[in-house]
Amino acid sequence: MKTTKKITLPESEIPKQWYNILADMPNAPKPLLNPQTREPLKPEEMEDLFAKELVAQEFSKERFIEIPQEVQTLLKIYRPSPLVRASGLEKALDTTAKIYFKNESVSPVGSHKLNSAIPQAYYNAKQGIKHITTETGAGQWGTAMSIACTHFGLDLNVFMVRNSYNLKPYRKMMMRTYGGNVHASPSMLTEFGRNALAKDPDCQGSLGMAISEAVEMAFKTPNCRYTLGSVLNHVLLHQTIIGLEAEKQLEMAGDYPDKVIACFGGGSNFAGITFPFLRHKLEALNGRAVSCGAPSSAVNTRFMAAEPASCPKLTKGVMEYDFGDTAGMTPLIPMYTLGHDFQPDQIHAAGLRYHGGGQIVSQLKQDGFIESYPVDQHEALSAGILFSKAEGIIPAPESTHAIALAIREALKAKEEGKEEVILFNLSGHGLIELQTYDMFLDGLL
Amino acid sequence: MKTTKKITLPESEIPKQWYNILADMPNAPKPLLNPQTREPLKPEEMEDLFAKELVAQEFSKERFIEIPQEVQTLLKIYRPSPLVRASGLEKALDTTAKIYFKNESVSPVGSHKLNSAIPQAYYNAKQGIKHITTETGAGQWGTAMSIACTHFGLDLNVFMVRNSYNLKPYRKMMMRTYGGNVHASPSMLTEFGRNALAKDPDCQGSLGMAISEAVEMAFKTPNCRYTLGSVLNHVLLHQTIIGLEAEKQLEMAGDYPDKVIACFGGGSNFAGITFPFLRHKLEALNGRAVSCGAPSSAVNTRFMAAEPASCPKLTKGVMEYDFGDTAGMTPLIPMYTLGHDFQPDQIHAAGLRYHGGGQIVSQLKQDGFIESYPVDQHEALSAGILFSKAEGIIPAPESTHAIALAIREALKAKEEGKEEVILFNLSGHGLIELQTYDMFLDGLL
Repeated sequence: MKTTKKITLPESEIPKQWYNILADMPNAPKPLLNPQTREPLKPEEMEDLFAKELVAQEFSKERFIEIPQEVQTLLKIYRPSPLVRASGLEKALDTTAKIYFKNESVSPVGSHKLNSAIPQAYYNAKQGIKHITTETGAGQWGTAMSIACTHFGLDLNVFMVRNSYNLKPYRKMMMRTYGGNVHASPSMLTEFGRNALAKDPDCQGSLGMAISEAVEMAFKTPNCRYTLGSVLNHVLLHQTIIGLEAEKQLEMAGDYPDKVIACFGGGSNFAGITFPFLRHKLEALNGRAVSCGAPSSAVNTRFMAAEPASCPKLTKGVMEYDFGDTAGMTPLIPMYTLGHDFQPDQIHAAGLRYHGGGQIVSQLKQDGFIESYPVDQHEALSAGILFSKAEGIIPAPESTHAIALAIREALKAKEEGKEEVILFNLSGHGLIELQTYDMFLDGLL
Repeated sequence: MKTTKKITLPESEIPKQWYNILADMPNAPKPLLNPQTREPLKPEEMEDLFAKELVAQEFSKERFIEIPQEVQTLLKIYRPSPLVRASGLEKALDTTAKIYFKNESVSPVGSHKLNSAIPQAYYNAKQGIKHITTETGAGQWGTAMSIACTHFGLDLNVFMVRNSYNLKPYRKMMMRTYGGNVHASPSMLTEFGRNALAKDPDCQGSLGMAISEAVEMAFKTPNCRYTLGSVLNHVLLHQTIIGLEAEKQLEMAGDYPDKVIACFGGGSNFAGITFPFLRHKLEALNGRAVSCGAPSSAVNTRFMAAEPASCPKLTKGVMEYDFGDTAGMTPLIPMYTLGHDFQPDQIHAAGLRYHGGGQIVSQLKQDGFIESYPVDQHEALSAGILFSKAEGIIPAPESTHAIALAIREALKAKEEGKEEVILFNLSGHGLIELQTYDMFLDGLL
């Protein structure tokens, strides 16, 4: 029996444009608001914080946005990423479902985050910016920004949630090897951080707090801009390269997904894999011709977010205006949120510990295009071990949530004797997070 | 300017056969000897220790050996691996040379070792073997065997050099996640280990000692065989898939290497990348037609091993019969050796700390087909940092030796204004060895 394990797209087929779902949404999301005036935010008000071209992308309604040639060249270091038939997992589950995963762990930093770090560093450098700040939870985004900034000669300061900083020494080392400056957050480098430490010297930090510090430093440093690894529209835009490739690869395999699954932190890998498929559904509903040879059944495809049970913003959050950070320095975002001061448990999937769902995803959720499912840490890590043994790849703790949900659906398909096609995104590998597996195997989690 | 960064071979082009250089060597290596009788070893004498089909491959003179279909399917999880134009490194060096590297770090275990672990587990399982033993230095081989054995339902015991066991906790965790049983060597599980610990309770172990323990356990356990990750002919054979792919990929790029470079521990990644190119040179010298469209200049291609300065077996060893292990339980191997009781410094490239060069490579070295160059740890890790920043991939400490030698040659080419083509093997990534980089950046190495 000849099995095609990997579906490899030729380098020449790498997408030349990103897909902007704002062009196809039946209901436009409400605008971001200026935190002081509570008036709709104008692009120019964001340009002190973000590079101009990124702000333009944040507000753009163009369906497709060109990927600059220099960015394409850099993406080719690891892209197109393989689409893999999870035949080992199918066998282990004895399921009637066909399971595919997009393997974003092949990026040299080990996750999908480089897809947005490269263009973000590029646009900042092109504008003549010299200093960049950012925050990182699990460390994936900080790692990606470290190598991207080094490539473009940008100086980078990363605020890393203190809890992760202490628990994940290898992430720090990785950023340092790439040339990034990493600080445990809260830190003594910002007013916000000093105040937080004055109140609680043992404060373990949160993603919201780290964002506050990075934003403050960007505002106070000459020729400096802030970058964010998820949540915002331009970040989601950059990540659509994942789904655009997967679309072509599934066409090569002669399949179309019935269910598209990803873990959900701030929405970047989720949007990346789902939006290009969701586009077909929206096209059909808009009465437009469905593109790229998608079948008419595309209208029934489901888009499923796997959330950590300890931070279920889409499932249990409230749709309202909220800040992106703890201090309330960012624009107000209309989104499903658990509150910008929400403190989730210290789960190992630190990249999923964010309080809000972002503007676009939240609107799509409210409009019924997106479903969400909480997954607890134990189910997630069990799925991670099963996947490691079945497919040989040790997944990131974040990605194990997507795997757990894919397994649930594959077992349901088996019960019902259905031959459905499940696609999930493997957002990253877990080689820097092996302590998590070690503790889990010791029964400590 | 359009740059082809990665040269990707379609999955259908994965090699169907391994290349056996024994068929083309002008001088056959001297035979292995039975350690008791000192008579040439008969295949059947090796079958208590190794699976039958692996022993047959060890002695085979067939030029090509079929890769079983099931092994091919598993190799497709990560193969064909990309051939990458090191354009970032070329730019950083401002060299006139074209540098390519074969990226074996994309394997889910992070190195080339899986190329031989899969067939070794396969042949053992096919023979009905239930238990496997092996040793590991840096942990790369033990990791690869852990996932390969889990796939085929084999129970695995790995003896890991105690120094690495203590210094590289992530490697242990990785083997454990995959389902392997890992023991610090010397251990209390074998007579050899107990004796070693009785003599020196703090003994840090060596690869030779770990081999002795794994061999002893294999002999004493019913339905158990030993597996080795380098040195032996059948291991080198399995690794030729690296060079066979690179040959096709360079043809796609319209280039042929003037220099082929790899780091050298027991010879497996070195043989893997060099033998298929060395074949063209041997064919030309044998007066046979040169295969695969290799140019007539192939006869001038040089094959360069990068050895650690602290364990320079090919450069400073003596060509003689020596044991593969410390206790003297393995067959006697005709090879360049520093002595089976040689104790190299505790360098971080633990995978290069082996005392001997193996039967085939040593003969080729004696016959002038292979050159070797010592590289010290400081030069190697500096090269690793430069490569990390220029190409985005953090290399394994072992692989940094190959990178350092490639850099030397690229700078020489620049001085001489030559446009030569350099190919090196990136045998693995260093994400599990980040402590090494951290110590190096702290000035501790």
